[in-house]
Amino acid sequence: MKTYPETINKLLNTLSHLPGLGPKSAERIVFHFLKQDDKFTREFVKNLTDLKKEIKTCSQCFNITVNDPCFICQDTKRDCHIICVIAEPQDVLIIEKTGEYKGLFHILGGVLNPVEGITPDKLKIKELISRIKTSPTPIKEIIIATNPDLEGESTAMYLTRHLKPLNIKISRLAKGLPMGSTIEYADEVTVSNALKGRQTL
Amino acid sequence: MKTYPETINKLLNTLSHLPGLGPKSAERIVFHFLKQDDKFTREFVKNLTDLKKEIKTCSQCFNITVNDPCFICQDTKRDCHIICVIAEPQDVLIIEKTGEYKGLFHILGGVLNPVEGITPDKLKIKELISRIKTSPTPIKEIIIATNPDLEGESTAMYLTRHLKPLNIKISRLAKGLPMGSTIEYADEVTVSNALKGRQTL
Repeated sequence: MKTYPETINKLLNTLSHLPGLGPKSAERIVFHFLKQDDKFTREFVKNLTDLKKEIKTCSQCFNITVNDPCFICQDTKRDCHIICVIAEPQDVLIIEKTGEYKGLFHILGGVLNPVEGITPDKLKIKELISRIKTSPTPIKEIIIATNPDLEGESTAMYLTRHLKPLNIKISRLAKGLPMGSTIEYADEVTVSNALKGRQTL
Repeated sequence: MKTYPETINKLLNTLSHLPGLGPKSAERIVFHFLKQDDKFTREFVKNLTDLKKEIKTCSQCFNITVNDPCFICQDTKRDCHIICVIAEPQDVLIIEKTGEYKGLFHILGGVLNPVEGITPDKLKIKELISRIKTSPTPIKEIIIATNPDLEGESTAMYLTRHLKPLNIKISRLAKGLPMGSTIEYADEVTVSNALKGRQTL
């Protein structure tokens, strides 16, 4: 046995495509499945199949959802004049948890990354523009909430350039020192952003 | 959406049982499955189901195998007088890759860990003893190759105590400085082991 049986290698190969899994962690997972009873695997397979069957994309905001349109787009109590543009559906939950935001969302499905072939047409940008143009209630503000990193920043810049002609307020999440951090250990760009964005008390 | 749909939570819960996955990495995997086409999931499910269907345990050495007895136990060119006792099937491949070992293996299926309820009867220890006693070729040496940590050491001690009466040579993998390491940064126990196990040149 200089190598694993073909069946194991095949699963190792599929596992290695999942984010965050290296060859060693994939191996540990395969042996975990082998150690567990069949019930565990059956349940896992069922949950995964159900996921792919039941979870759809909202036709308005492109969030993940069981019903279309999604819970947020259907909610009449939300502020329909404001759209928060985010990269991935995961970010919706993070913003919702703050309890600060009552508007709508628009999920781009990623950020611009020419190296990985993610060009503007791969993201839901033209859908955003036509959504703003055809919205029954006029959109007053677009909050761009992509990550403050290279790809997030260039996506924000691209969006700003293409949304400017629509003549609505465009804002971006504040950049500065995270809560609980120490200025001593903060990087220069973060401190520089905190200075630029300083608030009058 | 203060929380994910039930379907997602169910898969997140199953994923969190896999070794090495925290809530955040489980989330990333779920969203990866949602982003990929159905073919990816179908292939994953097939590979996982095949794994559980095809991979068995060798009735002699308890290694994972497609055929019983396994490749190594069937190989007539191997030295049948020597058995290397290891904790998990993964370790077989590591030892095989050295090309240094031509004997047989015996997989315990874990190490002693009373806190987690892994008592001697949970491991293939009595199977090892009866295998030694009933072996068609007399066993001349048992190499204990459990990890040099607390559980591995106590398993080795337990095995030694129970194998001594059989009157065969019992050995343990050498403990010392790993290749490429620096004595300056090695811990005391490692250096102490390297001293105790020093070899005459």
